[in-house]
Amino acid sequence: MDYRKQSLILHEKWRGKIEVVPRVEVSDREKLSLAYTPGVAEPCLAIHEDVEKSFLLTRRWNTVPVITDGTAVLGLGDIGPEAGMPVMEGKCALFKAFGGVDAIPLCIRSKDTDEIVRTVELLAGSFGGINLEDIAAPRCFEIERRLKEDLDIPVFHDDQHGTAIVTAAALLNACKLVNKQISSLRIVINGAGAAGIAIAKFLLRFGVGDIVLCDRSGILSEEDPALNPAKREIASLTNRTGLRGTLSTALRGADVFIGVSGPRCVTEDMVREMAAGAIVFACANPTPEISREEALHAGAAVVGTGSSEKPNQINNVLVFPGLFRGALDVRARDINFEMMKAASEAIASCVKEGELSPDYILPYAYDLGAHEAVAKAVAAAARRTGVAAL
Amino acid sequence: MDYRKQSLILHEKWRGKIEVVPRVEVSDREKLSLAYTPGVAEPCLAIHEDVEKSFLLTRRWNTVPVITDGTAVLGLGDIGPEAGMPVMEGKCALFKAFGGVDAIPLCIRSKDTDEIVRTVELLAGSFGGINLEDIAAPRCFEIERRLKEDLDIPVFHDDQHGTAIVTAAALLNACKLVNKQISSLRIVINGAGAAGIAIAKFLLRFGVGDIVLCDRSGILSEEDPALNPAKREIASLTNRTGLRGTLSTALRGADVFIGVSGPRCVTEDMVREMAAGAIVFACANPTPEISREEALHAGAAVVGTGSSEKPNQINNVLVFPGLFRGALDVRARDINFEMMKAASEAIASCVKEGELSPDYILPYAYDLGAHEAVAKAVAAAARRTGVAAL
Repeated sequence: MDYRKQSLILHEKWRGKIEVVPRVEVSDREKLSLAYTPGVAEPCLAIHEDVEKSFLLTRRWNTVPVITDGTAVLGLGDIGPEAGMPVMEGKCALFKAFGGVDAIPLCIRSKDTDEIVRTVELLAGSFGGINLEDIAAPRCFEIERRLKEDLDIPVFHDDQHGTAIVTAAALLNACKLVNKQISSLRIVINGAGAAGIAIAKFLLRFGVGDIVLCDRSGILSEEDPALNPAKREIASLTNRTGLRGTLSTALRGADVFIGVSGPRCVTEDMVREMAAGAIVFACANPTPEISREEALHAGAAVVGTGSSEKPNQINNVLVFPGLFRGALDVRARDINFEMMKAASEAIASCVKEGELSPDYILPYAYDLGAHEAVAKAVAAAARRTGVAAL
Repeated sequence: MDYRKQSLILHEKWRGKIEVVPRVEVSDREKLSLAYTPGVAEPCLAIHEDVEKSFLLTRRWNTVPVITDGTAVLGLGDIGPEAGMPVMEGKCALFKAFGGVDAIPLCIRSKDTDEIVRTVELLAGSFGGINLEDIAAPRCFEIERRLKEDLDIPVFHDDQHGTAIVTAAALLNACKLVNKQISSLRIVINGAGAAGIAIAKFLLRFGVGDIVLCDRSGILSEEDPALNPAKREIASLTNRTGLRGTLSTALRGADVFIGVSGPRCVTEDMVREMAAGAIVFACANPTPEISREEALHAGAAVVGTGSSEKPNQINNVLVFPGLFRGALDVRARDINFEMMKAASEAIASCVKEGELSPDYILPYAYDLGAHEAVAKAVAAAARRTGVAAL
């Protein structure tokens, strides 16, 4: 099926993928007087006395905006805030269907970091957490960092951390198949935007042996004066052996390729040069860095892509609904590394030992049990690390 | 029943009066691929090419935020943005139940006019219209004016215009009962905040003979140098005979009293001094300017209050759901006087000739037929005045 043509037709028919519905009846005078005036004055005063009660007396505890500036939507790039809305709405539908979270799409008509940060801060009293989405790098790093510092509700940039969490989950299970330890891996990541940098940082904290990060200019080296601050920082943490050159150089002898870049930048020959038991996650959408078939033909042991039509779709849909469910359930004031690690491990553990195979390393995105497992693990990690209020 | 105590208990049980639900299924791979990636790229690109398509391909066409800074919530005053949320949520529930509008509550942590205006402008691409709520005067006037100038979607401050529209509707029917013409009325409004000033302006455009506006200091006079710009403007448009003095002076011989002020500032003696067939709308909440019983005892012919427990509740719940329904249905780019006037007349016309009595001048807030009538009338007026895109 041509999903994109069909999707456009369906969007015209749907006229919106989410809606807001009342949870209370207002069909007579008494009901109106309780849900609205004059009764509503009392919960208002209760929150005025103790603002924490906004989590008990309104929907704040379960509400998360999906916020974008429309600058890095899917693989489409800077298409503008309104044009990002079909994606944001889709995420909101998934938030509820898989995590029970009430999510609302908000697009911001600005590309200014200060202005985006300020807008989110001004609105934060309406929400239990903040999901940032499809905001271009390197701006997204500063926006997330400042919001995390300033707000006492969880802030999560899905393109960074959702991608990192699900990639790590896939890697955990792939390693079992090829009998390698995470700590001994040499990993090559292609793409040094929000996702690539976040995956690198996350996997380093997971204990990966070495990571080499590449962008369009080749291997990132901390000696390159042209790097932006985000790239320089990650260059200083990666590439321990000081490799220089192209992606092809980097891949020689590597255990893992992770692509969050663009179409067709990896050849079969490059995969043939990787170590035995090569793991290839070619996640560019809609056209991957190398097709699943080519990668397998070149000898890769495990292949994942971003496509829903192939085995091993590496998709952050597996992450955000359960992650926020868990964080909101315990009113976490942050989403920290331990919570994200717990999410990765929970996703990986949803594939039972007998089921694990090169064609099945991740649960399906619509597996409700997986989302529940993520929520439980994240809530437990939040409590363990002292960021949970409940 | 003690609505306020009971309401607090119910709010603790409800934990939110609205929720967000998906309108699409995402329960298998194919459905996910159509509602989300990869299919969703196509509607994104369609909006990128023509931003107007955001009204066709997302829920934007039907979505309205209920925005407050929490500075003038009910009669409670400046209780803070989070504390206003139970009211905003209640309005959102009513928006959907009575108007089919998807409304979301947003509270803004700022009292700065520029910052509030900018925040709403930055978010406007997510919405089909903007409902401002419980923002203190005189700030609310400038915020609304600037947003109306800058945005091409309807902007409506309910505390001003919703109140004015329903008050005018009540007045139209009350006039029939006492056999007076709108054009011959002398009206006294007590309270020169957002509601009082908006009612005065609206009724003047309706053709009312003369209006005298009072605040805590008595009759507003344009010669008073202490007035803020909003009060000075309305002072110059009202009080044609140059009255000076107190509310009591103003009420002598007046046909109508409209109270949007505070408790117990009108006595039975003051009502006795009004003209024969006096109309008394004492709308302060929860305690009116004069009780219904006292006003009737003092000879008022028609009495309305803000209370849901008495006949003739003058409540803007009768206005905003149908008004936005009508405006959104024809994608109006503004809500103009003709649309508001049409709403008043539609509400008044819902009380049939045989039913009209001093105890029944307005339809009930939960009368779905009334909301439908408002929507139709508003849509027709928008088309007639050239502000409708559909």
